[in-house]
Amino acid sequence: MKKQIKILMDDREPKTIELKNNICNLDIVLIRKRLEVGDYIYPKLSICIERKEINDFCCSIMDNRIETQIEKMKNNYENNFIIIVGDVMKRTSEIDENCIWGKITSLIIKHNIKVIQCENDFQFLYLIKSIINKYQKEKQNEN
Amino acid sequence: MKKQIKILMDDREPKTIELKNNICNLDIVLIRKRLEVGDYIYPKLSICIERKEINDFCCSIMDNRIETQIEKMKNNYENNFIIIVGDVMKRTSEIDENCIWGKITSLIIKHNIKVIQCENDFQFLYLIKSIINKYQKEKQNEN
Repeated sequence: MKKQIKILMDDREPKTIELKNNICNLDIVLIRKRLEVGDYIYPKLSICIERKEINDFCCSIMDNRIETQIEKMKNNYENNFIIIVGDVMKRTSEIDENCIWGKITSLIIKHNIKVIQCENDFQFLYLIKSIINKYQKEKQNEN
Repeated sequence: MKKQIKILMDDREPKTIELKNNICNLDIVLIRKRLEVGDYIYPKLSICIERKEINDFCCSIMDNRIETQIEKMKNNYENNFIIIVGDVMKRTSEIDENCIWGKITSLIIKHNIKVIQCENDFQFLYLIKSIINKYQKEKQNEN
């Protein structure tokens, strides 16, 4: 039996994530819990992932919520990710496009947050697994 | 007059980049030159950017060229970026999708390369400018 990856997931995340996870067959076990910081946590490797649908990402730039969120992430975890789900060009939010690109470079350069863009939740789930695998390998190489 | 940003650009990059740069009006001056490493260089801040159209990105994963390229980048510059232009879902390359996501997480986590995805060269040019601006601000804050 393959080893399962147990991930804490904020209980306000959509129910469809679990359904998609069951379809994917990635050996991820999602454990719903109220999280104060981030949406998906893998505590063993101090990995914190914020999942942002593109319109929510835009809103969080406009109301500056993103800044509070990343400060909390940086204060609590070592390996912090924002995964943007959905296409910048398909946003319905009225934000200027260049504000989005500017915020992405700011997150990466100023805040040392790792930002990945994907198009759907299946890709998102695969990315979570791939991120954890990579840090596990890094840790093995250190030992 | 606004200060222009002078960027070295590999002379094998498509001619259309300059045309698009002229339309954009971003105060970027592109200087064509044969570059041994990367496609766009801002030497003052040791910024090196590799521009990868999605199909070329896929090919460079399949023939492992990407590994050689990033080793050169890491050996020569401090702030290394790969900007992927084009949609993963619209690739014509036959590579499995998960190989692409796996390579992106590997570049970010194992190699400490900053990866940004955008959809066209106008966004690409804006991203270059935004990246340089952010490092300039970081430097000003240090002084």
